[in-house]
Amino acid sequence: MMYRAKIEVSLKSGHSDPEGEMTGQSLRELKYSVKSVSVSKVYEVYFEADSRQEAEKQVDEMCRRLLANPTKDDYRFEIEEVK
Amino acid sequence: MMYRAKIEVSLKSGHSDPEGEMTGQSLRELKYSVKSVSVSKVYEVYFEADSRQEAEKQVDEMCRRLLANPTKDDYRFEIEEVK
Repeated sequence: MMYRAKIEVSLKSGHSDPEGEMTGQSLRELKYSVKSVSVSKVYEVYFEADSRQEAEKQVDEMCRRLLANPTKDDYRFEIEEVK
Repeated sequence: MMYRAKIEVSLKSGHSDPEGEMTGQSLRELKYSVKSVSVSKVYEVYFEADSRQEAEKQVDEMCRRLLANPTKDDYRFEIEEVK
């Protein structure tokens, strides 16, 4: 079966987010009343797996092995079967 | 009032996504049956605005002026008031 995973990888709270800080600064220079900005990344992955359970296991592994840095990132994901 | 906007900026379809392609290649090297990967960015912005209508107008402007490249990016956002 083909599955689509939408995986959001974001910094753990307490870790500095230079890109978010720079974006906040740029928005304030454009005169918006911005308090804070944080940036995260979303991966949309289409892949094959034998079952939904297997698909969830694989996506969790992908995050731990490649997509998220366990020291500084949190991740969460949704999976749906696609035709 | 304080608002939180969650803004997703993704490549328009048809534009090449080198980061997504590289990620797909790395996942296939790890033996996952990955068909395709696309990468997008999510900005979470806390900001002040006078009303919900004004908040939506400002976020749309932020996207067009700074966060999204009109040539190659699509964007969509959700806004909620925060206490």
